[in-house]
Amino acid sequence: MSFHAFAALAAKQPLVSYQYEPQPLRPQDVEIEISHCGICHSDLHLIDNDWSSSVYPLVPGHEIVGTVAAAGSECTLVPGQRVGVGWQRSACLECDFCRAGEENLCPRQEAVCVGNMGGFAERIRLDGRFAFPLPAVLDSAAAAPLLCAGATVFAPLRRWNVRAGMKVGVIGIGGLGSLALRFLRALGCHATAFTSSPDKRDEATRLGADEVASSTSVKEIRALANRFDFLLCTVPARLDWITYLLTLRPNGILCLVGAPPGVMQILAAPLLLGQRVICGSDIGSRRMIRETLSFCAEHGIGAQVETAPLEEVNAAIQRVRENRVRYRMVLTR
Amino acid sequence: MSFHAFAALAAKQPLVSYQYEPQPLRPQDVEIEISHCGICHSDLHLIDNDWSSSVYPLVPGHEIVGTVAAAGSECTLVPGQRVGVGWQRSACLECDFCRAGEENLCPRQEAVCVGNMGGFAERIRLDGRFAFPLPAVLDSAAAAPLLCAGATVFAPLRRWNVRAGMKVGVIGIGGLGSLALRFLRALGCHATAFTSSPDKRDEATRLGADEVASSTSVKEIRALANRFDFLLCTVPARLDWITYLLTLRPNGILCLVGAPPGVMQILAAPLLLGQRVICGSDIGSRRMIRETLSFCAEHGIGAQVETAPLEEVNAAIQRVRENRVRYRMVLTR
Repeated sequence: MSFHAFAALAAKQPLVSYQYEPQPLRPQDVEIEISHCGICHSDLHLIDNDWSSSVYPLVPGHEIVGTVAAAGSECTLVPGQRVGVGWQRSACLECDFCRAGEENLCPRQEAVCVGNMGGFAERIRLDGRFAFPLPAVLDSAAAAPLLCAGATVFAPLRRWNVRAGMKVGVIGIGGLGSLALRFLRALGCHATAFTSSPDKRDEATRLGADEVASSTSVKEIRALANRFDFLLCTVPARLDWITYLLTLRPNGILCLVGAPPGVMQILAAPLLLGQRVICGSDIGSRRMIRETLSFCAEHGIGAQVETAPLEEVNAAIQRVRENRVRYRMVLTR
Repeated sequence: MSFHAFAALAAKQPLVSYQYEPQPLRPQDVEIEISHCGICHSDLHLIDNDWSSSVYPLVPGHEIVGTVAAAGSECTLVPGQRVGVGWQRSACLECDFCRAGEENLCPRQEAVCVGNMGGFAERIRLDGRFAFPLPAVLDSAAAAPLLCAGATVFAPLRRWNVRAGMKVGVIGIGGLGSLALRFLRALGCHATAFTSSPDKRDEATRLGADEVASSTSVKEIRALANRFDFLLCTVPARLDWITYLLTLRPNGILCLVGAPPGVMQILAAPLLLGQRVICGSDIGSRRMIRETLSFCAEHGIGAQVETAPLEEVNAAIQRVRENRVRYRMVLTR
């Protein structure tokens, strides 16, 4: 038996049709027949080996929706059940972090498409404890990005107790930022979208932003001084952190979910005098993924997606690279 | 009636004997006959106008212990009662921060010796709600530094829930760091002291450090990678933040209570991948000061001090400037 997938055979190469022999189905494993898989910017970084962690042949894809095709003897999922899978495919489930429900911090965690074959494929096998039943009301294509992009922005909102009435800024209105705006609207927050694309201003308002500002105009950012309880940065860009920090109220929090390249420059004074916080957040634990899915089901939130057939993966990737997708590309079979 | 004090008449000048007419005693005010006042590095910064906020004549001093000499009609303190005063002398007590018990973040807060006459004096008048009865077991000289230095390091330990079994690093073993080590020992934490003074290594161990490392040797800091749950930086120094951040475990927190000059350089990756946090903390709220005092009373903690008569304030300041005091200079009357 072999699984059909699309793989990069070397860094920065187009994907090619690829067959591989799956690992044996262990007792805890699930085999999923994939119906949908989102294309995340992380997939492009993996294809390009930007993080020096890529293993080739590399099958990208970690925003997976599909149906259970087979379940190991200890797996509680049922064939035919619709499930989703995000960035993480396993963890030790024994360390302090796992026991605290923070599997995303487990030192022995494994990623779906780093050293394993990912979701740009017909099928995938992985630890069934990292596959999540999808609420029936969620559309599969719109749900796929919730597994990674959605949980990645939802988790820090929960961790830092972002709640109704708070003023929140979202830097970058792409796959992550567009979902963040939807979540903030549902939470009852006052949201300000920061974008570098003038053509996204109206769309940001439609997605839930109460205000829109330029993410790169120091003047526009300065005008929002002392404003935000929470500022979520979704873009891996070099920004004027010193000015952004001053947009936080006392006790305000700047949370990064995209990694800016190079060194970040900050000042200590706004941290000290207003007890401000800079932090990062990394995907979501299993609990956070479950909460993301149920929150979206409750509030009727799905990602705004474009779809393309799996066979046209290279053209779809090209649209993502050109930043033309509003807001997530999802491959379908 | 006039109060006798010691004042700087201009930036970087020695203090001179100085008389001033106190503000009238308002209903909420207390008048304190000062018996002890610590010398904090902040006092030196104020004398030197390092923060461009100094108002001359400037009477420094904000780690005050004394007895109530008079109380306004609405003040609940009783003449003869022993009280302490820290950095803050008033707040609006009406804003969101004040109502949340965070008077130290009140935008209308006033400081004891910024635009007001401080504690290097025989007497002081201020809002009695910012004077704190001292537990009887505390020695006045050893208690004076608890009002500012003590509360400044105790507050972030409470805010971030630093607790028994945690591994904590303290950067800088001076007035603040020496108290932090005492607190951590009492809390049951495993403490590592970082110091640039080889002669403080043994003293740090005596104060409660389980381990001591150089605060400036990249090699020694690197050897502690992935170690700390909490890292408290008490020194206003330029440090290798990128290396220090890597000494934090996932979820670890770097908290600044001293403001390093200039721009701080950090990397985003350790914030994202391990969900680490950088933050600052600013003095302590009234609740935190009360908790500091009761914690110290319960655990028999006082600052290690040297004392000098108020009249010898300039010589005492000089010893502080030369970094010769172990660990806090307290003026007495």
